[in-house]
Amino acid sequence: MAAAQRMVVIGANAAGMSAASQARRLKGAGDLEIVALERGGHTSYSACGIPYWIGGDVTDAGDLIARTPEQHRERDIELRLHTEVTELDPDRGRVRVRGSDPASETWLGFDHLVLATGARPLRPPLPGIDAPGVHGVQTLDDGRALLDDLEKTETARPADAPRRAVVIGAGYIGVEMAEALIRRGYRVTVLDRAEQPMTTLDPDMGRLVHEAMCRMGIETVTGATVTAVAADRDGRARAVVTEDAEHEADVVVLGLGVRPETGLARAAGLPLGDSGGLLTDLAMRVRGRENIWAGGDCAEVLDLVSGRTRHIALGTHANKHGQVIGTNIGGGYATFPGVVGTAVSKVCDLEIARTGLLESQAASAGLRFVTVTVESSSRAGYYPGAAPMHVKMLAEHRTGRLLGVQIVGREGAGKRVDIAAVALTAGMTVEQMTSLDLGYAPPFSPLWDPVLVAARKAAAQVRRAGTH
Amino acid sequence: MAAAQRMVVIGANAAGMSAASQARRLKGAGDLEIVALERGGHTSYSACGIPYWIGGDVTDAGDLIARTPEQHRERDIELRLHTEVTELDPDRGRVRVRGSDPASETWLGFDHLVLATGARPLRPPLPGIDAPGVHGVQTLDDGRALLDDLEKTETARPADAPRRAVVIGAGYIGVEMAEALIRRGYRVTVLDRAEQPMTTLDPDMGRLVHEAMCRMGIETVTGATVTAVAADRDGRARAVVTEDAEHEADVVVLGLGVRPETGLARAAGLPLGDSGGLLTDLAMRVRGRENIWAGGDCAEVLDLVSGRTRHIALGTHANKHGQVIGTNIGGGYATFPGVVGTAVSKVCDLEIARTGLLESQAASAGLRFVTVTVESSSRAGYYPGAAPMHVKMLAEHRTGRLLGVQIVGREGAGKRVDIAAVALTAGMTVEQMTSLDLGYAPPFSPLWDPVLVAARKAAAQVRRAGTH
Repeated sequence: MAAAQRMVVIGANAAGMSAASQARRLKGAGDLEIVALERGGHTSYSACGIPYWIGGDVTDAGDLIARTPEQHRERDIELRLHTEVTELDPDRGRVRVRGSDPASETWLGFDHLVLATGARPLRPPLPGIDAPGVHGVQTLDDGRALLDDLEKTETARPADAPRRAVVIGAGYIGVEMAEALIRRGYRVTVLDRAEQPMTTLDPDMGRLVHEAMCRMGIETVTGATVTAVAADRDGRARAVVTEDAEHEADVVVLGLGVRPETGLARAAGLPLGDSGGLLTDLAMRVRGRENIWAGGDCAEVLDLVSGRTRHIALGTHANKHGQVIGTNIGGGYATFPGVVGTAVSKVCDLEIARTGLLESQAASAGLRFVTVTVESSSRAGYYPGAAPMHVKMLAEHRTGRLLGVQIVGREGAGKRVDIAAVALTAGMTVEQMTSLDLGYAPPFSPLWDPVLVAARKAAAQVRRAGTH
Repeated sequence: MAAAQRMVVIGANAAGMSAASQARRLKGAGDLEIVALERGGHTSYSACGIPYWIGGDVTDAGDLIARTPEQHRERDIELRLHTEVTELDPDRGRVRVRGSDPASETWLGFDHLVLATGARPLRPPLPGIDAPGVHGVQTLDDGRALLDDLEKTETARPADAPRRAVVIGAGYIGVEMAEALIRRGYRVTVLDRAEQPMTTLDPDMGRLVHEAMCRMGIETVTGATVTAVAADRDGRARAVVTEDAEHEADVVVLGLGVRPETGLARAAGLPLGDSGGLLTDLAMRVRGRENIWAGGDCAEVLDLVSGRTRHIALGTHANKHGQVIGTNIGGGYATFPGVVGTAVSKVCDLEIARTGLLESQAASAGLRFVTVTVESSSRAGYYPGAAPMHVKMLAEHRTGRLLGVQIVGREGAGKRVDIAAVALTAGMTVEQMTSLDLGYAPPFSPLWDPVLVAARKAAAQVRRAGTH
């Protein structure tokens, strides 16, 4: 009998542990040894759930953990926590590992290496940015630290004194954290350099989010360039300073997005894309490497609409990547064909969704397109709870191919983007979309679903522009 | 200048008035005279909204009217209410019209005829079925009559006496009416001949609806063959009699579904399908007729999954048909490619959806298939309000092509069927569906959307069955 092969996984979260679990499903311990190396102390948790933990919707951090270290170990996955990899040696098939004793480093050989090193939050090199009271929200430990700090603040202050929080960055994490802090009773200010919050939307749609945030009592300052975090006498953050103003804060949260954590890969000469993420083939092998795989937030993904690779940190992609990698290492066959750029978020009762390309992305992909925006309703107009829903649609000039959809509305708005996500994947034209057989009943939709209304308008626009 | 052509529309509701409006958008009154003939007194109303009017969610019937007769007339559409067509003469291009004076009938010539005669509710020829207190809910006038009757019942009875309603038929209308009557404080019994309610679902999924209806306090008697409606001394319905029991009722509602209203078309020799609906080409012309069009509940539609025509009475199809017909008569070009059989409904907080084929439909279309059923969750498990969601999926043997999806769950379940509706339209395989880029965030979905969970399981099933 042949000796077991060894699969080494770096990063024991979504992509890494999905890969490990799936490989284990397909191959027993006698055929495949699996070693997972994790810098932190947790496995397989939902980083996307952290805002809801902070906001109090989730009371136990344990609920965010899909699988504990023990559960992985029970399935014959050797898991080494608080273990850092300090060097990759792809050519000799080994990685250098530093355990709890920083002095002792050893080489660990692999037959298959899975890079699932995730992403790190952006932390601009500003004065005071590392002061106590300034928090990232990328890991469970970050969440714990923030929560402890909030509880301390809340205990220390008299109940009637206003609690103030500043969130730097008005992207997904930023707005979700704004909601969380509002729910804890904070006066929240969100600062963003851009013209509108949610730069994952076009500015006209971002403006709708801006207006809604104002109505929710979230002060949203756009065009704000943060220059420093000011500290009090004890060195603790007390205000965020911009070019124009100083925003006092009991607590500061960083919501500036993330970058792929690929320092090791870069040092080892592995191929990285424009965003610094690992480049893979469709089977999730690192390009040009037979036995090195990468997935999750450290990898770039193929955008099926623009034809380019992009960096999109999203747990749902990470899990799919892990599934594909584990299947392939386990001797099966699977591919990850790419993404269409779907994302959905909410801030209080506002739902925000997008898929495909923004105007700026379409232009930079060399596409010529028409855009339409419609205001429709989440339900039949006469049905209680019907709320306005704004849908923006981009379609390619001449071909009429759907290029992107953005939706801002209340209940029922967010997941409607899935209609467009599937249509994008299938390469449908907006004309084809006008006859889609979508679910209709008064509690669920007007007679013409808002997505169909937009498709009709876009198709008409394509026809009108068709002669040029 | 050529004399204006005349477009005659029979039936001034969804399909008919959409066609009239769209034709008018494209051609002015000087080019096209439009005459719409309506047997009743209302135009362009939402029949699907009637249960919500009865239930009190909609207080003003006027809210169900999208466009009044006056609004149509303002747009140069000649509308004749309370006007019945008694005969079609396709070869001579004319229809026989009876106005308010039943003695005087006249012929009205047409260049284009639009048949939008709708559907009539099934009313089995049982003793007592026409007694006062037995109500259909197809038209606005039906709704008015039922509501008057309910209000009279409620006024006549002491407040503490139980009010009892029996609904015959547990399809969409039946369950929606059950909810409406529960909301008015009635004890509701729903009777259905079938093994489970909602025969638009497979029996295993219908059982979930059955169980949920029981929990809502709706008595649901399946396998019940109604033999008569028993009347009191005044001749008013007092109970529904089945082979096994007698169910007392202050009011009886018929929810047995509808059949196409195509008596005139049949008499005129126009082509009808197996369900008695008019057969059209893709431009919605009645087959073999250059200038006769049909749409809405009186027409059959092509089922893109089975390749057969079916009768599906649904406002959303009717509006699309009207749009297509009006565009073509107006000199444009449009087609209605067909449906995939999507339907969505709710009873209290239970959402029920389906698209594509049931097991029985797939088998009778000659297809061999695998089925899977999964129980997943509407949101990330840790997010408040996460509720179980059952998804059943059918995929074709060998090819793995998606054939159908049924979903039963709470909030967020119903419109998820749109994902499958688009995938069916695009001819996707369940394997392709496993990598769909659907919207993910904890308030909206688990990491793997329930539809993806079902697709993964179905794809595995197709692979396993693939060698046979």
